Amino acid sequence: MALLASSTSGIFSSCGSLWMGGDTFEVPLELFAVNRRRLAKRLSRIVDGRPFVLLQGGSELPFYDTDLTYHVFRQESFFMWTFGVIESGCYGAVDVISGSAYLFIPRISDKYQIVWMGVRTLEDFSGRYNIRNVHYCDEMEKVLHNAHPSVLLTLKGVNSDSGLPVNEAKFPGIEKFSVDNTILYEEIADLRVFKTDLEISVLKYVTEISSEGHRKVMRYVKGGNKFEYQCESEFLHHCYSVGGCRQVAYTSICASARNTAILQYGHADSPNDKMIESDDLCLFDMGASYFGFCSSVGCCFPASGKFTADQKLIYEAVLAASCAVFKACKPGVKWVDIHILGNQVLLGELVKAKLLKGDPEAMTSVGLGAIFQPHGIGHFLGLDVHDVGGYLSSQPPRRGEPRGIDKLRTARVLQERMVLCIEPACYFIDVLLDEALKDAVLSKFLIPEAIARFRGFGGVRIVDVIAITKNGAVNFTKVPRTVKDIEKWMAGKDDKKYK
Amino acid sequence: MALLASSTSGIFSSCGSLWMGGDTFEVPLELFAVNRRRLAKRLSRIVDGRPFVLLQGGSELPFYDTDLTYHVFRQESFFMWTFGVIESGCYGAVDVISGSAYLFIPRISDKYQIVWMGVRTLEDFSGRYNIRNVHYCDEMEKVLHNAHPSVLLTLKGVNSDSGLPVNEAKFPGIEKFSVDNTILYEEIADLRVFKTDLEISVLKYVTEISSEGHRKVMRYVKGGNKFEYQCESEFLHHCYSVGGCRQVAYTSICASARNTAILQYGHADSPNDKMIESDDLCLFDMGASYFGFCSSVGCCFPASGKFTADQKLIYEAVLAASCAVFKACKPGVKWVDIHILGNQVLLGELVKAKLLKGDPEAMTSVGLGAIFQPHGIGHFLGLDVHDVGGYLSSQPPRRGEPRGIDKLRTARVLQERMVLCIEPACYFIDVLLDEALKDAVLSKFLIPEAIARFRGFGGVRIVDVIAITKNGAVNFTKVPRTVKDIEKWMAGKDDKKYK
Ligand SMILES: [Mn+2]
Ligand SMILES: [Mn+2]
Repeated sequence: MALLASSTSGIFSSCGSLWMGGDTFEVPLELFAVNRRRLAKRLSRIVDGRPFVLLQGGSELPFYDTDLTYHVFRQESFFMWTFGVIESGCYGAVDVISGSAYLFIPRISDKYQIVWMGVRTLEDFSGRYNIRNVHYCDEMEKVLHNAHPSVLLTLKGVNSDSGLPVNEAKFPGIEKFSVDNTILYEEIADLRVFKTDLEISVLKYVTEISSEGHRKVMRYVKGGNKFEYQCESEFLHHCYSVGGCRQVAYTSICASARNTAILQYGHADSPNDKMIESDDLCLFDMGASYFGFCSSVGCCFPASGKFTADQKLIYEAVLAASCAVFKACKPGVKWVDIHILGNQVLLGELVKAKLLKGDPEAMTSVGLGAIFQPHGIGHFLGLDVHDVGGYLSSQPPRRGEPRGIDKLRTARVLQERMVLCIEPACYFIDVLLDEALKDAVLSKFLIPEAIARFRGFGGVRIVDVIAITKNGAVNFTKVPRTVKDIEKWMAGKDDKKYK
Repeated sequence: MALLASSTSGIFSSCGSLWMGGDTFEVPLELFAVNRRRLAKRLSRIVDGRPFVLLQGGSELPFYDTDLTYHVFRQESFFMWTFGVIESGCYGAVDVISGSAYLFIPRISDKYQIVWMGVRTLEDFSGRYNIRNVHYCDEMEKVLHNAHPSVLLTLKGVNSDSGLPVNEAKFPGIEKFSVDNTILYEEIADLRVFKTDLEISVLKYVTEISSEGHRKVMRYVKGGNKFEYQCESEFLHHCYSVGGCRQVAYTSICASARNTAILQYGHADSPNDKMIESDDLCLFDMGASYFGFCSSVGCCFPASGKFTADQKLIYEAVLAASCAVFKACKPGVKWVDIHILGNQVLLGELVKAKLLKGDPEAMTSVGLGAIFQPHGIGHFLGLDVHDVGGYLSSQPPRRGEPRGIDKLRTARVLQERMVLCIEPACYFIDVLLDEALKDAVLSKFLIPEAIARFRGFGGVRIVDVIAITKNGAVNFTKVPRTVKDIEKWMAGKDDKKYK
């Protein structure tokens, strides 16, 4: 609560943290200093001389041709990881040998910029970020020249989910330096996979805030007669007003009834605009973001507060997969095997439920899992909700078989300090069911009448945030998960159970 | 309330509108059809042959290199004005002679896109938008070729606020057509300045929702001990949950105490993160956006619910300017003169308040107004909150004198159907006051001791949305404005007065 009296801003507490005040979480700036030390240590072992890491932060995006911004600026994640700086238009450097950090900020040349944006001096930044070497961007060539780096290590790489290149740092005069862009990406991406205690505590916080938001929304929706977007709004309001999270990690998915089978429902074309009826099944997948740290929580429940027999059937099939996956997550286990396990448990449950017939292992090996869950079992989570490091050259490559496994965002072996979300699911998607029914291999496992009954049912997805520890996985998500617990929660009971 | 039973989405009502359901506003698709007719009529008078207008809609922006989007997509405004289409990645054309519209949508080539995004057929779009000619983007060359346009009119122009170019339509094969980019921008930008009845009704709605949000926030903040961002969150929640407005027109400004003198406070670097103390003055400038239609409402009030003498002094000075400006707004009056009037009334009030001495007209003519109000008196408002058409080649150019008048976003003569916001203000900004005190001409009007007393006071801005009618201006903003009305509202009275 001790905001700097002299500051117009509450973000920078006197003890050196990013903080939204009150009961919100104080993210210590030490978190980013630790990351820089980890990076320097790692690079010092593989690069000779006196290399400097050079990163370019994100820039504000205009809303088309206007003088307004498209949205509140959010820092680029490699830059955030390294420096914790929330302002746009910056550069940063790390002296790998000494560990010293440099921050370069845009020069405010126009008096009207001060009037519009407020004063931002070098001293302000230096104090805010505990970084002694703060200069203007237009001094970068001079400052770096005087520091005599043997080489500038810049970031060149391709995001394995999107196929898009990361933004490699460029500045006027960079051609006068020796630049190497072949080393940094793999090293920093790999470091980002393993979360420090400080990072884990932030990810835990943002998942708890997201969980609270979900719990609130579950009760809000009870009985239906709410628009899906009103539920989104409740969630956003909770995360921001209570948790200090101005942004979300991804566009909120508030799907009801058959919309639950559209994986990315809630996007601009289908903006959570359906009225939720009292007998609808809801699938809400929403996660807050706090100073860039992302969460991803998904809950599935009946608007009525009571599961129907069919809702319970599918929900519990997915829950069984979720529990099996959670238990299996520990150091040394391949993520690919986790995905296959999730599929196999789900398919086994669908056999018990008499939607499928045959051997779940055989079904899984021919890729029937991808008909019901056409996405991977989960992904790394950090400063990006689909976090980096999934496919690095030092790590196992993307697999092609069985069907669906190519959708996995990583094929790595689980290790301590990985934070992931696990999201087993079961959807009834016409285009995929039709395909399976026509497929000679897949169709023999399907019981057509039972499948027909679930056309239009939608889908179930359960999304948890977990961290891998020496002894197995820890779950940060705090929401009712069993049918009984969900029904109790929606009936207004168990108020203190999930705190 | 009659959502299409067969649709997974509530947006497209059966009677042809963009609508978020319930009590939210139904934006008739006819609004966009009217715009196309206006455009075709205007162009048919100045272009021979059979010209086609060709516009390219906006595209989703990735969040840096990730496979997530930076924010929920919002359509580019020229495209929205013409077609009312909310999806990304589209093109549209208008046959100027027949008035027929063509819509081109992205082809979904991958089954997984259906799984992730939902089905989007040509027929869906045709039904949604009442546009018969819907094709895939990759058919554009063929379809346009068969339509035999004499020329494609594309959009080339520069936004007079940002200096950024608009996005000119390009597609593979466009080189086979005759293209003219010299005509369209000025014509369509000028049409956008004049709002139809349908457009005015949407702008009125979104301003009423924004007004309600402000009224709610004023009571919420009473007594202080709230963070500024909690007020932003209350506003966002109201606009979305009650008004169906998923987006805001600009980043919300929730400034308290000295932050009120930072014009664009609330941006990423100073994210509304100060605790509001009970004796703070608040300046909240926030506006919702509904299907792209923007509002801009600004309220200034004491967190305590009771103005201090100094707060009242400055507030009433700005209110006097606001009232004078509002009364002066009518067809035939130059916007430049409105700006000067606002300045002069404000400076006159500051003379009465004994902060200044001398003749307000003389002060205004040397630009003292720009010390206290370094921005223009307002701007056009529409699908952009800083709407287009301010400086077109057919209209008066930007003026340089007196000081501050170059900040005006238009120098046009007011006419019927213009919708603007008026935002007189008075700030105490150190860097500008210091400059004025050193200035030989300006300093003679200042009473230094009085000015010194207001250092750190912050500022007051009052922002209303108005429409120009034959008989003068109409105010769409519904918030308490006088000191007495604000105090009554914050005391929990007048519940029905602003409905
Ligand atoms: Mn996910
Ligand atoms: Mn404005």
